Amino acid sequence: MGLFTKDIKTMDDLFVHQLQDIYYAERQLLKALPKMADKATDRQLQQGFLTHLDETRGHVQRLEQVFEMHGAAIKAVACPAIDGIIAEADDVTGEIDDKAVLDAALINAAQAVEHYEIARYGSLIAWAKQLGRNDCAAVLQKTLDEEKATDRKLTTLAETRVNLRAAS
Amino acid sequence: MGLFTKDIKTMDDLFVHQLQDIYYAERQLLKALPKMADKATDRQLQQGFLTHLDETRGHVQRLEQVFEMHGAAIKAVACPAIDGIIAEADDVTGEIDDKAVLDAALINAAQAVEHYEIARYGSLIAWAKQLGRNDCAAVLQKTLDEEKATDRKLTTLAETRVNLRAAS
Repeated sequence: MGLFTKDIKTMDDLFVHQLQDIYYAERQLLKALPKMADKATDRQLQQGFLTHLDETRGHVQRLEQVFEMHGAAIKAVACPAIDGIIAEADDVTGEIDDKAVLDAALINAAQAVEHYEIARYGSLIAWAKQLGRNDCAAVLQKTLDEEKATDRKLTTLAETRVNLRAAS
Repeated sequence: MGLFTKDIKTMDDLFVHQLQDIYYAERQLLKALPKMADKATDRQLQQGFLTHLDETRGHVQRLEQVFEMHGAAIKAVACPAIDGIIAEADDVTGEIDDKAVLDAALINAAQAVEHYEIARYGSLIAWAKQLGRNDCAAVLQKTLDEEKATDRKLTTLAETRVNLRAAS
């Protein structure tokens, strides 16, 4: 960003900036999700992380598609929020030996990631529509639907399997 | 956290650690929300931030109540996630002069905060129930309900007022 000029002048600039931010976040998750899958001991949770890794590859491609549809360069900007969420996940999970408690903490970490993405894609879709880019909004909506579905699956997994074992 | 021992051994430890984390986050928000209210130009948005500041004072008190109910010391641990979310909000809003675009960015920032809290309180409530602490879960549920209501109000404000002005 500019030191002497303010770089976000219009709603269009804000939309493109947020695309760059979530593009960075999704690519960080491509690195984080395999580590989370490695740490998980519950088989369904491990498989869930690997499935979401596949989906995340699709989210990156959809963002590249939206950059192109909107005539903007494909670019990432650092996103301190996702870095903080991932750093906190590493801190906490590094403090846990018990496998079931670790799985509970991993679900908590993953849900913080999902909710971050739900908030960001929600804004992006609202802004795209306001900018008359229903085509971009429709592409982003597919990803938002997948993030929400992943969050629901994590809740179910926590309530039906992981928390029961962790608290026993 | 311990350098040589792993400090989170049980689900109870994880619950208390997460209480300490969200206690830190809520107290950071007591400092961030007045600044967001100062930056906002839409009157309803500004009032919304001030109303949520009042609610946040209540959330801090409820957390202190849960610490006491659970027999744990009232304590905060650094939460890199909320620090990252707030740092990102400062970065982005510092890049914007246009008042309507700034309001849109402030709503986006606030919704990232709300979703972070929704994820964390969701886990805390599930864990409290699993630990047989329905009394703690009930107190935390009141806060979760308020965070969700705030998120919905922000969406309505964006869709009915702020984004329309920002994109015009």
